Amino acid sequence: MCQLMGMNCNVPTDICFSFTGFQARGGATDVHRDGWGIAFFEGRGVRVFLDPQPSADSLVAELVRHYPIRSLNVIAHIRKATQGEIGLENTHPFMRELWGRYWIFAHNGNLADYAPDFDGSFLPVGQTDSERAFCHLLQTLRARFPAGMPARKRLQAAIEDFSAQVRALGQFNFLLSNGDSLFAHRSTDLYYIVRQAPFTVAHLKDQDVSIDFSEVTTQDDRVALIATQPLTDNETWTPLPSDRIAMFVDGALRES
Amino acid sequence: MCQLMGMNCNVPTDICFSFTGFQARGGATDVHRDGWGIAFFEGRGVRVFLDPQPSADSLVAELVRHYPIRSLNVIAHIRKATQGEIGLENTHPFMRELWGRYWIFAHNGNLADYAPDFDGSFLPVGQTDSERAFCHLLQTLRARFPAGMPARKRLQAAIEDFSAQVRALGQFNFLLSNGDSLFAHRSTDLYYIVRQAPFTVAHLKDQDVSIDFSEVTTQDDRVALIATQPLTDNETWTPLPSDRIAMFVDGALRES
Repeated sequence: MCQLMGMNCNVPTDICFSFTGFQARGGATDVHRDGWGIAFFEGRGVRVFLDPQPSADSLVAELVRHYPIRSLNVIAHIRKATQGEIGLENTHPFMRELWGRYWIFAHNGNLADYAPDFDGSFLPVGQTDSERAFCHLLQTLRARFPAGMPARKRLQAAIEDFSAQVRALGQFNFLLSNGDSLFAHRSTDLYYIVRQAPFTVAHLKDQDVSIDFSEVTTQDDRVALIATQPLTDNETWTPLPSDRIAMFVDGALRES
Repeated sequence: MCQLMGMNCNVPTDICFSFTGFQARGGATDVHRDGWGIAFFEGRGVRVFLDPQPSADSLVAELVRHYPIRSLNVIAHIRKATQGEIGLENTHPFMRELWGRYWIFAHNGNLADYAPDFDGSFLPVGQTDSERAFCHLLQTLRARFPAGMPARKRLQAAIEDFSAQVRALGQFNFLLSNGDSLFAHRSTDLYYIVRQAPFTVAHLKDQDVSIDFSEVTTQDDRVALIATQPLTDNETWTPLPSDRIAMFVDGALRES
């Protein structure tokens, strides 16, 4: 299996602190050695850093840890291969364009015998069940809203309908973003926390590193973090409702 | 205007030496300060590093310069903005998926009043004429070959037909790759060199750096480099034929 991490904020925020703990799980404090990746939305643009090497030893991960890219929506993934070889084409997160927006997707789980009927609008490049699910989701959304991107609530409902079908095939924890909202679906493990004023000190679970968020934030900042397992050991992380699409906008959770 | 650099090889090769000279043109030895990017194919996968900062000062460029990613097809671009704001969504190279393969595109030039009729299969995210041309090209290819990717020669001919129409609107120097072949179109400036045995010493034009390729290659290696302006000052670079699609496969030029 894999691990997921996501961030959604109301002001562009860097993820250096959380990534420090997450990165350690890719081969140091945990077993997810089969590649990793992270995507940062900046406006409508997106930067995706991928590495088929373990994140704990990765030069690219070192860059990401020290380079404060400020973003409203971030999705990261560390991989323990289940379906598909270790290789760049099977490394999450995946990216496609739909309705003139980039979409980013990362998955934790395993979908058995998943062979959707593709019409050619979005085709997998690699061999993972995860990329198949992403292509199938975008094909489904495009067919349902041919005129362009609908309002958030309708989008959330459509992703909910899609997920209800696919989760019958196996574990389907995923994070999805179009740079505006971040959608999260929990089958088994997915926790979240919303940090807002009054900000306090957070301490990582995977490394002895702390940060006092009151020193690096303003009163109005709001940051939601989502992760397969809590990243800090002195804050309360809440499991996301299972088998639902949680939608995060401006650092707040909006359930379907 | 912008500058382009491409590499196509018969064995996975790193581009650290050439990138050292190219990077300097992004704000140090030349004026292309409005962002830069580079894409490396590794098998069917691709890694794209983008930065809206000048490449001469970029932390990400430093990483790319020192991290030997071995690739058969590389496309890089440094930008001097003509159409579209400075921002990540307008930073080349652009990526899309077609026929289950990633495609990478970068453009140098300016297309006046270019408003293609999009059917929605590929839509621009940013505001550049370049991304419009890329989306239009992929839409055209997909419509012409609905059953999937054709043989290289047919692909080359189709890209040639498309380019013949678009170059009527302005300068259309571009590089395009699907990880198998690298296609180059010269309107004004685009040079190439093929390095093969016997390998010799090359010296950069933009920095006082040399490399003896005979020490880092084998007898069978063949590497084609393509650039807006020659990158070295002691080798003979040849202008590509203008208004044609040059196709590079396994480090060799195959004209249409």
